[in-house]
Amino acid sequence: MQQTKQVQDYIRTIVDFPHEGILFRDVTTLFADPRGFRMAIDQMLHPYAGERIDKVVGLEARGFILGGAIAHQLSVGFVPIRKKGKLPGRTLSQDYKLEYGEAIVEIHDDAIAPGEKVLIVDDLLATGGTCGAAIQLIERLQGQIVSCAFIVDLPDLGGRKRLQEMGMNVHALCSFEGL
Amino acid sequence: MQQTKQVQDYIRTIVDFPHEGILFRDVTTLFADPRGFRMAIDQMLHPYAGERIDKVVGLEARGFILGGAIAHQLSVGFVPIRKKGKLPGRTLSQDYKLEYGEAIVEIHDDAIAPGEKVLIVDDLLATGGTCGAAIQLIERLQGQIVSCAFIVDLPDLGGRKRLQEMGMNVHALCSFEGL
Repeated sequence: MQQTKQVQDYIRTIVDFPHEGILFRDVTTLFADPRGFRMAIDQMLHPYAGERIDKVVGLEARGFILGGAIAHQLSVGFVPIRKKGKLPGRTLSQDYKLEYGEAIVEIHDDAIAPGEKVLIVDDLLATGGTCGAAIQLIERLQGQIVSCAFIVDLPDLGGRKRLQEMGMNVHALCSFEGL
Repeated sequence: MQQTKQVQDYIRTIVDFPHEGILFRDVTTLFADPRGFRMAIDQMLHPYAGERIDKVVGLEARGFILGGAIAHQLSVGFVPIRKKGKLPGRTLSQDYKLEYGEAIVEIHDDAIAPGEKVLIVDDLLATGGTCGAAIQLIERLQGQIVSCAFIVDLPDLGGRKRLQEMGMNVHALCSFEGL
C-alpha cells in the first residue's frame, strides 16, 4: 500500500505569528485541501460513532468551520461560543486568564437545554483557556459534555491535562511538540 | 400534508442590535435546531446540484459555520476570508466602505488556484460590501465564482443588485423586508 498523507501533513507551520518566537500551526492549508478537510472531519467523528450527541458547540472562529461541518454530518444543531459582544441575544459570560490579561466568551442562554449531550469542537488545544471557559458556560446551562475534539494538541502547553482535570474526555487528531 | 416550519421560521429577530433602530436577523436559532440547520445547508446546495465547485469560501464569522458544512458535504476544500490581521500566511487585502469608515478583508494568496470554481457563502446579504470585497479578492487570484449563497437577503439594502451588477449569480433561502 502506498504511503498516503495524514492530517498533520496538510498543516503548515508559520514562524513568528502572531508574534516572535511562536510557531503557528496553520490549519487553513488542511481546510483548503479537499482530501485533507474530508479526512479531518471524518476522523474527528470516529471516536463518537454510536454515541448520542445533541449539539455541537464551536469556538470562535476556526471552531466554527469544523463545528458547522460536524453538526451537519450528524444532523444536529450547532451552537457558537463567541467573544464578548458578538452574540445578539441574551447571553451567559465567562472570563478566563490569558498570558497577559483576560478574555471573555459568551453563549446564548437558550442555546443548550438541560441534559443535552454536547460535543465541543476547536482546531487547536494549547493552554485550554478558551475551552475551559466554554466548558463552564455549557455546564452552567446544565449541558452534558461528551468530549472536546481538536485537530491539533500542543501537549507542552498543558491544555489536555487541564481539561482532563475538569473531568473531560479529550481527543485530538495529531500533536506537535514545543510551542 | 401538514404545514411544516420553513427556514425563515427558525430565524429570530432581535430589536436594536447591534445598535438602535436595527432589526437583527439572528440565524443562531436556525443553526441550533437540528432540522433547521440540516434544511438550511441542504437547501443552500440545491441550486448547484451537478455543477462543478472546487472551493467553498466562507466570510468571517457566521459564513464559516455554513461554509464548513457545505465544503464537507461537497468533499471540497474550505477557504476563509477574514478581517485584517487574522490569517497567518501571506495574504491579499481588499478594503471596502462601511456606513462610517472602511474595513479590510484578507485571503491567503495561495488559497485559490487560477481557474478554480468557487462558491461564496455567508449568512446574510445586506449592502453586499463584504461580499463585494470577497469577490474582488477571489478574482485577483483568478478564481471563477460560481455563485454567492446566503440564508437571508435584505433586498431593501441593495446587496443583491450590487452583486448582480458585478456579474454574480446570487441565491438566498429567504428575504426580509425593511432593515
